[in-house]
Amino acid sequence: MRTAQEYKESLRRMRPNVYKFGALIEDVTNHPATRRAVEGHAQIFDAAQREEYRDILTTTSSLTGERVSRYLSVIGSAEEMVKNVRMKRLMFNLTGTCTGGRFVGFNAINSMWAATYDMDHELRTDYHERIRRWLTNAQKEDIALAGALTDPKGDRSKRPLEQNDPDMSLRMIAKDADGGIVVKGAKVMIAGAAEANEVFVLPGTGYKEGESDYAVSFVIPRDTKGLTVVEARHPSDGRDMESGFDNPVELGGITQGYLLFQDVRIPRERTFMAGEWKYSLEAVLNFIAPYRSAIGGCVAGQGDVIVGAAALMARANGLSEKVFRDKLVQMTVNNETTFGMGVAASVMGKLHPSGVWIPDAKLANVNKVHVANLPYETKRLAQDIAGGIAETGCLPSSQDINSPIYGDLLQKYLKAGTDGETRAKVARLIEWLTIGEGVPGCMHGGGSPDGAKLMINGAAEIEANIKLARKVANLKEVSAPEK
Amino acid sequence: MRTAQEYKESLRRMRPNVYKFGALIEDVTNHPATRRAVEGHAQIFDAAQREEYRDILTTTSSLTGERVSRYLSVIGSAEEMVKNVRMKRLMFNLTGTCTGGRFVGFNAINSMWAATYDMDHELRTDYHERIRRWLTNAQKEDIALAGALTDPKGDRSKRPLEQNDPDMSLRMIAKDADGGIVVKGAKVMIAGAAEANEVFVLPGTGYKEGESDYAVSFVIPRDTKGLTVVEARHPSDGRDMESGFDNPVELGGITQGYLLFQDVRIPRERTFMAGEWKYSLEAVLNFIAPYRSAIGGCVAGQGDVIVGAAALMARANGLSEKVFRDKLVQMTVNNETTFGMGVAASVMGKLHPSGVWIPDAKLANVNKVHVANLPYETKRLAQDIAGGIAETGCLPSSQDINSPIYGDLLQKYLKAGTDGETRAKVARLIEWLTIGEGVPGCMHGGGSPDGAKLMINGAAEIEANIKLARKVANLKEVSAPEK
Amino acid sequence: MRTAQEYKESLRRMRPNVYKFGALIEDVTNHPATRRAVEGHAQIFDAAQREEYRDILTTTSSLTGERVSRYLSVIGSAEEMVKNVRMKRLMFNLTGTCTGGRFVGFNAINSMWAATYDMDHELRTDYHERIRRWLTNAQKEDIALAGALTDPKGDRSKRPLEQNDPDMSLRMIAKDADGGIVVKGAKVMIAGAAEANEVFVLPGTGYKEGESDYAVSFVIPRDTKGLTVVEARHPSDGRDMESGFDNPVELGGITQGYLLFQDVRIPRERTFMAGEWKYSLEAVLNFIAPYRSAIGGCVAGQGDVIVGAAALMARANGLSEKVFRDKLVQMTVNNETTFGMGVAASVMGKLHPSGVWIPDAKLANVNKVHVANLPYETKRLAQDIAGGIAETGCLPSSQDINSPIYGDLLQKYLKAGTDGETRAKVARLIEWLTIGEGVPGCMHGGGSPDGAKLMINGAAEIEANIKLARKVANLKEVSAPEK
Amino acid sequence: MRTAQEYKESLRRMRPNVYKFGALIEDVTNHPATRRAVEGHAQIFDAAQREEYRDILTTTSSLTGERVSRYLSVIGSAEEMVKNVRMKRLMFNLTGTCTGGRFVGFNAINSMWAATYDMDHELRTDYHERIRRWLTNAQKEDIALAGALTDPKGDRSKRPLEQNDPDMSLRMIAKDADGGIVVKGAKVMIAGAAEANEVFVLPGTGYKEGESDYAVSFVIPRDTKGLTVVEARHPSDGRDMESGFDNPVELGGITQGYLLFQDVRIPRERTFMAGEWKYSLEAVLNFIAPYRSAIGGCVAGQGDVIVGAAALMARANGLSEKVFRDKLVQMTVNNETTFGMGVAASVMGKLHPSGVWIPDAKLANVNKVHVANLPYETKRLAQDIAGGIAETGCLPSSQDINSPIYGDLLQKYLKAGTDGETRAKVARLIEWLTIGEGVPGCMHGGGSPDGAKLMINGAAEIEANIKLARKVANLKEVSAPEK
Repeated sequence: MRTAQEYKESLRRMRPNVYKFGALIEDVTNHPATRRAVEGHAQIFDAAQREEYRDILTTTSSLTGERVSRYLSVIGSAEEMVKNVRMKRLMFNLTGTCTGGRFVGFNAINSMWAATYDMDHELRTDYHERIRRWLTNAQKEDIALAGALTDPKGDRSKRPLEQNDPDMSLRMIAKDADGGIVVKGAKVMIAGAAEANEVFVLPGTGYKEGESDYAVSFVIPRDTKGLTVVEARHPSDGRDMESGFDNPVELGGITQGYLLFQDVRIPRERTFMAGEWKYSLEAVLNFIAPYRSAIGGCVAGQGDVIVGAAALMARANGLSEKVFRDKLVQMTVNNETTFGMGVAASVMGKLHPSGVWIPDAKLANVNKVHVANLPYETKRLAQDIAGGIAETGCLPSSQDINSPIYGDLLQKYLKAGTDGETRAKVARLIEWLTIGEGVPGCMHGGGSPDGAKLMINGAAEIEANIKLARKVANLKEVSAPEK
Repeated sequence: MRTAQEYKESLRRMRPNVYKFGALIEDVTNHPATRRAVEGHAQIFDAAQREEYRDILTTTSSLTGERVSRYLSVIGSAEEMVKNVRMKRLMFNLTGTCTGGRFVGFNAINSMWAATYDMDHELRTDYHERIRRWLTNAQKEDIALAGALTDPKGDRSKRPLEQNDPDMSLRMIAKDADGGIVVKGAKVMIAGAAEANEVFVLPGTGYKEGESDYAVSFVIPRDTKGLTVVEARHPSDGRDMESGFDNPVELGGITQGYLLFQDVRIPRERTFMAGEWKYSLEAVLNFIAPYRSAIGGCVAGQGDVIVGAAALMARANGLSEKVFRDKLVQMTVNNETTFGMGVAASVMGKLHPSGVWIPDAKLANVNKVHVANLPYETKRLAQDIAGGIAETGCLPSSQDINSPIYGDLLQKYLKAGTDGETRAKVARLIEWLTIGEGVPGCMHGGGSPDGAKLMINGAAEIEANIKLARKVANLKEVSAPEK
Repeated sequence: MRTAQEYKESLRRMRPNVYKFGALIEDVTNHPATRRAVEGHAQIFDAAQREEYRDILTTTSSLTGERVSRYLSVIGSAEEMVKNVRMKRLMFNLTGTCTGGRFVGFNAINSMWAATYDMDHELRTDYHERIRRWLTNAQKEDIALAGALTDPKGDRSKRPLEQNDPDMSLRMIAKDADGGIVVKGAKVMIAGAAEANEVFVLPGTGYKEGESDYAVSFVIPRDTKGLTVVEARHPSDGRDMESGFDNPVELGGITQGYLLFQDVRIPRERTFMAGEWKYSLEAVLNFIAPYRSAIGGCVAGQGDVIVGAAALMARANGLSEKVFRDKLVQMTVNNETTFGMGVAASVMGKLHPSGVWIPDAKLANVNKVHVANLPYETKRLAQDIAGGIAETGCLPSSQDINSPIYGDLLQKYLKAGTDGETRAKVARLIEWLTIGEGVPGCMHGGGSPDGAKLMINGAAEIEANIKLARKVANLKEVSAPEK
Repeated sequence: MRTAQEYKESLRRMRPNVYKFGALIEDVTNHPATRRAVEGHAQIFDAAQREEYRDILTTTSSLTGERVSRYLSVIGSAEEMVKNVRMKRLMFNLTGTCTGGRFVGFNAINSMWAATYDMDHELRTDYHERIRRWLTNAQKEDIALAGALTDPKGDRSKRPLEQNDPDMSLRMIAKDADGGIVVKGAKVMIAGAAEANEVFVLPGTGYKEGESDYAVSFVIPRDTKGLTVVEARHPSDGRDMESGFDNPVELGGITQGYLLFQDVRIPRERTFMAGEWKYSLEAVLNFIAPYRSAIGGCVAGQGDVIVGAAALMARANGLSEKVFRDKLVQMTVNNETTFGMGVAASVMGKLHPSGVWIPDAKLANVNKVHVANLPYETKRLAQDIAGGIAETGCLPSSQDINSPIYGDLLQKYLKAGTDGETRAKVARLIEWLTIGEGVPGCMHGGGSPDGAKLMINGAAEIEANIKLARKVANLKEVSAPEK
């Protein structure tokens, strides 16, 4: 398996096609806009080599029997799925960020592993064989894989073909004679593309008859010809370009890019769906279930760091963290709830005939609802504990704190339970975690909470519950009104 | 295994020692104060015989290899523990109530299974052998077993021996020559005693040196000489004595009794702890972990019925339940959260050398916090959906609704999406579930949420989280203030 | 003004037409189902005579210049409206209940004072003169007046004339030559009818063209010929019939009745609307605004008692209430929020040309939303603080606690920070307040929270806010989609 | 009264003593770090001249009878205090920010108006006369006044003289012969200093005997000799320096500065407290009550803009805002709650003998608790409604969107209910409002919520509530435990 160093070298060998602030990023491993995120990803490779994390970050390949990165594995059991949840938590603990791109890539593999299996069985295609070959090689090379699901979609009240512009979802514009395809469009808000060797693309939603051009799935090198990546802004991302401690975290970072596909040619062996719209919904659902389960581990890992930072801030203010016991307990309750629901969804799942373990959809979607709520409360509580110094806009820049003119005065007045600079650094970390660049997208990442609620409603089995109520109290049937 | 009929007969054979409203209950199977709860318990025996519930309600005995009631089994794996959570949910679904007594008895067996194992190994006692013999027989006879944990405790700010009255926690007042003991005191708020053949008694808390007389555990027939049970009141329990539909549920009920021990003699073979105070805390903790895990299933089962009743009420009012989609989804989120956290705590546990699976304490206590909160919201939402008719105090009695003088008028004005009487019955069910006799004790049952928070705080590993935060932002150590 | 004694005598002089449990209540002042509520109402008269409460409970009549009960006054200013909010809080403090009937009567007067003024001005009717004469006399006699708004309504998805049965809302079935009317139908869930001398009837909703028969308003003696009152059940109301302390409050109570109108004749001088449907919506809105404002005071007064009972319970358990500081603060925040929002809605109102002060509708409806939420949390926190003894179904009856057989044992084991009986009584009060007969109908009383939300949405002025946002960020217009 | 232009000129005439990023700001009116905040303040002067806002933004001086800025007035009645709450809401509506500096200055005047009155009456000082003269002139010149309360404080567990460094709270180090004083120390997180002509300094807390050097109050020109202001960072404040639309708001902004006092000499006529520690607590409390009342208006004004922006974003996504009705209603409930509680606290106040109206402390502190909670929920809901595009880190920079290389593609894929650039701008506004530079400090601004809870607890009158509970249920006294 790759070392961190080998991973970085692999990135440097790629064609530069990532932009930010209007300019090309020549080397993602040292450009200030991407180097922290690369560093975070590099730690996955580092940690995978360490005994204490090995069981979480690696697993035995069902394809080759070799030890491989869990991020490139087929999830074969409830136990493996629970380890996935724990891996998400661990990676946030280690990097302070979500390394979400690798997670999407991982889920994309599993989703299409099942969908291609079904397609091959029912349609006599050979997609499953293609993905197997590709994956065997990807495991061997230990690539960093991102995943891409979300289409621009355009007007939310219209389907793809009702849009004025047919490109608002990624689509196939040609099929090669040999089975390869050509695609046009975009995937947006794609985590970790800059840090990836390859990108696994999924259909963005369940498509209907007549929309088959949109039902595409494939995997490509991130520097494929015709693909351009434009990185999105983050809160306070101007600080990436600064020196000083105002971007307090060096060993992790998040990037989310817009992937622009200008007539990109996908070879046959990397094409896993090419118009089979009937399987697009399944692909999305099989992506959502593990994603919305394991995201609970990610959010818990984020919460662990926030709990630690808040307790540290209390000390830096000269107070024992015990003063804030109730708030810290509530934060822990929040952390363990998203983690626990992820575990539960994992455990209550089912095995797909292809050998992929699919978590329980209802529990996974309930977790998504929590994930869109609880971290907000955790952050609010952190700001509550942290006091005025970590309130938004209440701390001078590291440049000012080190100013030759008045820096000594700022440091004098910033000291409390510790020296002024350390206290300022802790406060910056609180800002970074709660209203700065460290805030990951928990609300709509992996789909919106309103979508999750729709799925819960579908799963809620109101009729079954009505029957329980009627039986318990021996009540006759009452029909729902027609309108 | 016993039939429901055999179970009831076994109760009728017992010495009457249960009182309510100042009077002795001659036959708990037909007295209005207890017959519904007996009926609920009888359903466990019924359902255990049915194919669809068999896998949940029974298991293979690790002692005999026979199929036995899960309520009398040693929980040997995460899988068995998850089935325990599901059993709790199922039983609430079937009876509309919590049949909590059997659950306490079940956990008591498992808690003392581990504690006696440790005692025997370390102290060379033979307690584990005693419990094994008793359990083998109990499984064979398929008894209904309740459990008793809570002592009166007296002044909450004082330990047992600091109380003016040494009896405020149950204590051993003599040891027999043959190893039996004599106990005095009380256990209070004990669920399901009236419906039980036997009661398994645990130490009420972790005792310290000098408090060894309080460290007692044993199992006795509920009609043991010297034991008196006084049943507590429930909201609206006057309706138990009425005819009509104002107590809308006939096939389930809850009783909670005060067990008064007046110098009760316990034979050697039924004594499982007799002064070994060092093991009392372990016994309590090993009780708490599975209890606070599985209670999440119970609360989910209660929520299922509430969701059904609320949707039914909407229909009875002439509205589609779809009008209340958001509220029903929130109720489902609440249900699945307590269920899911119970599953997660179950799965993340550990195997005790005695063969008992002990769920994760942190997750179990987080679930206890939810259990003390979420069902309240679920009930509030049910009242919100149900409309004015189910508002507290807004519906005439069934006697009035059937009055020869004006009952026709009431029925005329009560009709809406269904006839007036049916609508009234559904409204009564909502009342029963949300502010009536059907409300179980989720707040302090199985211990108080404040106690759970203390345990979460202990488990929260603030120091470990501080280390994570420091590492992520490369921060130096900040010590906590001394005071 | 009347004394409490004179008030009770006035009730005894009335024709008995109130029923409960299928039987006629001969004398509401001493029947166990109604005497506590009568006692609560009697205290209004008592307190009005006391110097300390005089300014809150009485005011100067705008009609006669005499000192009159505030409950029979025209609310003429923001200041008077604020006193109304404070009166609600005070009355709950004094009686432990909401004396809601008098409050509805009070608001009905004010609502129709404005509506009749408008009708007379626009339609040349003499309704305002009629109400003025009636009110002048009512103030002089100092009657106890209840109010009645809610119709049975039948199927909620249909308007009155679409119902199978035209009587599902109260309607005029004839007009007398002299201007009086005859009405048929019912008003349901009417608070305080049994304790009232007269009942003021309002149209139940805003009626449309063709529905004029439903647009009726009038005031009648409660014992009018053809009117029958059937009292609804309350949680645990069986205890009204018991002795002992299980119904812990003697000086207050709530009744809510179904008023059955069998061709009731209303004389001209007591008829205030007779088909003028265009004014029915105004009547309802002018009722809602002050009602949903002042109900915040009521809920705060309830919360005051709950805070006190919870703190008392802590002490009875042997703990200082300081242990529960955070929870008690949250309860206080809840209390002051409903009180404060009531004050704010009162102050931000407008004067109607008739001289009635109408509170702000948006703030009043926001308060209704809080009123349907916050008291539930306050009750949950009270149960949390109170501990196991006050958990539902965890305390034997007063009969058992005084049993000659085992009462001494129960008292022995119930003692803690105080003697066993006192502790049991405090626990009963917690039960009564949180899940017993003392729980008033905060959810749908005065209309449902969903209705309030609809009104907030109407008032929210989304368009105005969009303009603010556009101006702040200099954004061009974005139109809403057509569908 | 001043025009906006005159105001800006007055700032340009001042000595530059404001720094950010290590560099002196030569002209605050056009430096990118301060010009938006100056613009926001300028709008106060503009709006005060406009008929529609005149009644809110100006009032009649109790000193001169002239029309003056409300920000420089003595609040003389409940009505004036309510207008203060409305002014706060209006100013947020107009500028998208909180112009908090002027608000602190305004409250400082009123707080010291009362405290100096009491000092003069009891100590025969002439402070009140000094403040009267200063204020008369300040009104005439229509100055922009900021206020400064918060000291660095150092170790939170120690009082000022227990600190290693006595300068951790601002202190008097000398008294001049003529009654002037010399001060040393700092005031931190001071809003609006850069935009102010003068700064009104208050004691930071209630001081005790022996701490008299810390009990100081005075008003000084912001460019006084020896005073240096260092501006703090805000989230994303690097964008202040950029062109393009990534800082979407030009007409408002917030600055919070650290005021460093290096032996600053205050003349006698500007000194309002010089060691009279007994009055320092009163000064702080009289500051807190109106501050924590009116801040509710500020938060509501912020919420109005967020509601508008969220609705606009829905439209830009191609959806009707009606889809999100429930969420928009909840946001409105939040807005109106802080506004309403501010109004209620204002109304329930008392008149100080000096002629200052002091709002109710309990209600004001309850509002502070809401202010530290509700805006967080409002922001979360805005992000929920806004969808993925406004999720943190999901939108490229304006530079990228206008890139000659791929800007056309980004604009193509960003279009939905409107063109791509407009949609991006609305998304930027959501970011700015919820996790960007537009987020004001609601948590600790005006003091921490934990401090407010302590004051609520003090005000909560637990004993009085216990008496109510005891009276309602006729219960005997239960004493609290000694320990």
